[in-house]
Amino acid sequence: MVRMDGPDFSKGVAWQRGEYVPIAQASVPLTDWGFLRSDATYDVVTVWDGAFFRLDAHLERFERSCRRFRLDPGKTMAEVTDILAQCVKLAGLRSAYVEMLCTRGQPPWGSRDPRQAVNQFYAFAVPYVWIANEAQRERGLHVIVSDVQRIPAASVDPTAKNYHWNDLTMGLLGALDAGGDTVLLTDAAGNVVEGPGFNVFAVRGGALVTPKEGVLEGVTRRTVLEMAQALGIPVELRALPADELRAADEAFLSTSGGGVLPVTRVDGQPVGNGAPGAVTRRLVETYWAWHRDPRYSRPIDY
Amino acid sequence: MVRMDGPDFSKGVAWQRGEYVPIAQASVPLTDWGFLRSDATYDVVTVWDGAFFRLDAHLERFERSCRRFRLDPGKTMAEVTDILAQCVKLAGLRSAYVEMLCTRGQPPWGSRDPRQAVNQFYAFAVPYVWIANEAQRERGLHVIVSDVQRIPAASVDPTAKNYHWNDLTMGLLGALDAGGDTVLLTDAAGNVVEGPGFNVFAVRGGALVTPKEGVLEGVTRRTVLEMAQALGIPVELRALPADELRAADEAFLSTSGGGVLPVTRVDGQPVGNGAPGAVTRRLVETYWAWHRDPRYSRPIDY
Repeated sequence: MVRMDGPDFSKGVAWQRGEYVPIAQASVPLTDWGFLRSDATYDVVTVWDGAFFRLDAHLERFERSCRRFRLDPGKTMAEVTDILAQCVKLAGLRSAYVEMLCTRGQPPWGSRDPRQAVNQFYAFAVPYVWIANEAQRERGLHVIVSDVQRIPAASVDPTAKNYHWNDLTMGLLGALDAGGDTVLLTDAAGNVVEGPGFNVFAVRGGALVTPKEGVLEGVTRRTVLEMAQALGIPVELRALPADELRAADEAFLSTSGGGVLPVTRVDGQPVGNGAPGAVTRRLVETYWAWHRDPRYSRPIDY
Repeated sequence: MVRMDGPDFSKGVAWQRGEYVPIAQASVPLTDWGFLRSDATYDVVTVWDGAFFRLDAHLERFERSCRRFRLDPGKTMAEVTDILAQCVKLAGLRSAYVEMLCTRGQPPWGSRDPRQAVNQFYAFAVPYVWIANEAQRERGLHVIVSDVQRIPAASVDPTAKNYHWNDLTMGLLGALDAGGDTVLLTDAAGNVVEGPGFNVFAVRGGALVTPKEGVLEGVTRRTVLEMAQALGIPVELRALPADELRAADEAFLSTSGGGVLPVTRVDGQPVGNGAPGAVTRRLVETYWAWHRDPRYSRPIDY
């Protein structure tokens, strides 16, 4: 509903340069190195049923990512929390995708020294984003393994969240063209690593296998590892060859954009019996159950 | 000078969403994948003494980069030329750094399919940018060879210009901390490849050596190769090990941000006799002489 007496916050709200604005008005200066050099870091926390899920884990990683790239958001994590909550409240969202980010800004004119730039903090809240729609979640995703290689850790540290997604986007375009729902990228050795916005797990003989290195250490990935421990499911953190994924009993993705998402086809071939598996379904249920657990859930005071 | 009767175009001018604005007002929507996924391409042409230098080469590469990343600027190259010239004219610049760029835009809400996005074209002109200041150009640059690896071609195609610069920026920060002027990144095999905004050349026994693969095919690099041919200087396009650069008679960078820039120290040690070399100086002179050559120069009608 559009309020005629004020800004329209119904599509989402951003915080920028000291004020809250409708998401459609949010912008980054064209000359900010955050855009012109993708010199930025970010994190995404979700709100479900009126509460942040694992906010502390996301704030902690955001601080670590900022340090890694020598970016200073100029805010305490308490101040960041207030801004994120205010974005959600102004937008009136009970479930939301909430992003905090920090850009380099730009050095004084003529300088190319990143140390002279004043870094800039932004945040925004928009309605919850699902990586997979309802039909896809029901039947499971069809994932294509791409021959585009994920940017290696020797070039860009994948554990610090960054916008270097050209490899993921080019892989995604190829996968969509090939009739897939999404894509998994590989490393130079042919192991699957991650996809656009998610980690990947295979289930083999009752155990979970997920790549150990060269991937974002997703908070949902961590949640899966903790759920596995709580449920007594063994976990192997190691390289995951694409062929092992194809031959798995079950497979799933982990993402803030929907939690645990079953994968039922890889490169056109069924995984296991081609339906979401029992281990995956148990993790999906636990994932949503944990959203009501006060250990992980921080209610927003609307 | 600030004109009180209109926008202040004196710091530069951008074209965005159909209009010309002062550079300080130019912005990209926060939710454009060009920012949130660095899903964009660009090119930079310079204006020197009132004329574009090698505009055709830059337009041709921009079109190729757009095709490579499946981006459509929605403009003919004649239209792009008009916009670029208009930016320069409104800013009243006789020498300028002129950038054209195309972002993905964003897919309709809820979709993550890049094919559904409406791509966006932007352009801007600002005063000429030198990668090295006058003192650095005089004495030659001190370059640090970084152990950060340039993002490999298997991940992101370096011949299509992109904003994936985290590796370059992290390398640059390390080089500045170590007392260098700028940085060169290496590939996985320890060959130097390129730095933030430039290609690299070594001079050995009167011949030029420059990396063949895994680098942006810079228009200034191409100009150097053509000047070498015109001047009868032999060229070797091949891998350039860091040790070979260190042991070179001369070294230089090629960039739209200043042309041919002598390198006189690598990792604290002098290159050759530690002063800009004769071959380098000859190429610097030829580079600027070619700016007056109508084969490469296209005057702007101010």
